[in-house]
Amino acid sequence: MRITSLAREARVEVRFRPFLLGPLFKAQGWNTSPFVLFPAKGRYMWRDVERLCADLDLPFRRPENFPQNSLLAARVALIGLRASWGEEFCCSVFRAEFNDGRQIDEQTVIADLLTGLRVEVGPVLEAAHADGIKAQLRRETEQAQQLGIFGAPSFVTPDNELFWGNERLQRALDWVTSKREASDWL
Amino acid sequence: MRITSLAREARVEVRFRPFLLGPLFKAQGWNTSPFVLFPAKGRYMWRDVERLCADLDLPFRRPENFPQNSLLAARVALIGLRASWGEEFCCSVFRAEFNDGRQIDEQTVIADLLTGLRVEVGPVLEAAHADGIKAQLRRETEQAQQLGIFGAPSFVTPDNELFWGNERLQRALDWVTSKREASDWL
Repeated sequence: MRITSLAREARVEVRFRPFLLGPLFKAQGWNTSPFVLFPAKGRYMWRDVERLCADLDLPFRRPENFPQNSLLAARVALIGLRASWGEEFCCSVFRAEFNDGRQIDEQTVIADLLTGLRVEVGPVLEAAHADGIKAQLRRETEQAQQLGIFGAPSFVTPDNELFWGNERLQRALDWVTSKREASDWL
Repeated sequence: MRITSLAREARVEVRFRPFLLGPLFKAQGWNTSPFVLFPAKGRYMWRDVERLCADLDLPFRRPENFPQNSLLAARVALIGLRASWGEEFCCSVFRAEFNDGRQIDEQTVIADLLTGLRVEVGPVLEAAHADGIKAQLRRETEQAQQLGIFGAPSFVTPDNELFWGNERLQRALDWVTSKREASDWL
C-alpha cells in the first residue's frame, strides 16, 4: 500500500512482479502457509500485522480463510501490468482479502475488482486462462525462486540484493539510492 | 548490543531472560535452526544479518558451526543475572559466536569469557551444573513457550504484548512508553 509513494519520494523505479508462493513454499517442504504450519509463529504474525496496520493507519480484518489461492489474481495482475491498471489491481486484491473479508480465489470477486477499476472483465478473464499468461506466471515464479525469494513481499535491487518483508522496504530503497549516489561520484 | 542504551533513552526497564531455543523449535517440528532447515531463507538471513551489522557498525563474522549448543551459556547467564555481570556476559557470548569465531558450546570458551569479565570461574561453573540452575532454565524455557515465544530475540511488555526480532525492538519500547503516557493522563 505504501511502496508506490515511498519509491516516488526516493526517485526509485519499482516494477511489480507477481508470482506464486505455493511452489516456493513447496520447495521448503511446506504444503501451506507457515502461518498455518507453525501455530505459535502464526498467532504472532497475525497480531504483528494487526499492530503494523494500526501504525500505518491501514484498515485490517483477518481473513476467515487463509491462505487463499491467488492463481487467478496473479494471472490477472500480469495482464494488468502490461496495461495501466496492474498496480492498482494488486492493491485492490490485498484490500479484498485483508480488509473486506472477500475470497480472492473466486472469479466473481476478481471480476468485481476489475469492474471497480473500470476494466472490461470478459477479455481479461479470457486472457487469464490462455496458455501465454499461464506460462508467464510459471516463468516468473521460477525466476523468483532463482533470485533466492522464499516469501512475500520481497524486493530485489538492480544489483540483485534481496530484501524480504514490509520492514525492509525502506532499507531496500536506501540501498538503491546509496548505490546511485556512489556512482554519481565516479 | 543496543537494547541497554535504547531502553535507557526510553526510560524503560529491561529484564534479560535467557531461555533455550531448542525445545521451542522442537515444538514447531524442527530439530535444528530454521536457517539450516530452510536453505533459501537461511542464505537470506545470513546476508540480512551481515547488512544489519554493517548498518549498526557492529563487527560480524558468520560462525563456521551453526547453531551452537547454548545450554551452558544460558545457565551461566542465569547465574550472572542474579549477580551484576549477567547482561555483559550475554553480550560477550554473542560477540564470541558471531564475531570472534569461537565455539560457545565449549566450557573453556565460557571460562575465558568469565575471566574477561573478572568473574571467578570455578564457583560459577560449579553452580551452572547444579540442579537449581538446571531447573530454573527449564522453567524459563517453559515460560517462554507459554508467552507465545518461538524465536529470539523476543520482547514481552508488561501487558504481555510480544514483539519478535531485532527490527521490533524500537516498536516494543514505543509500546511501553505510549502505554505509560496514556496512563499518566488517568
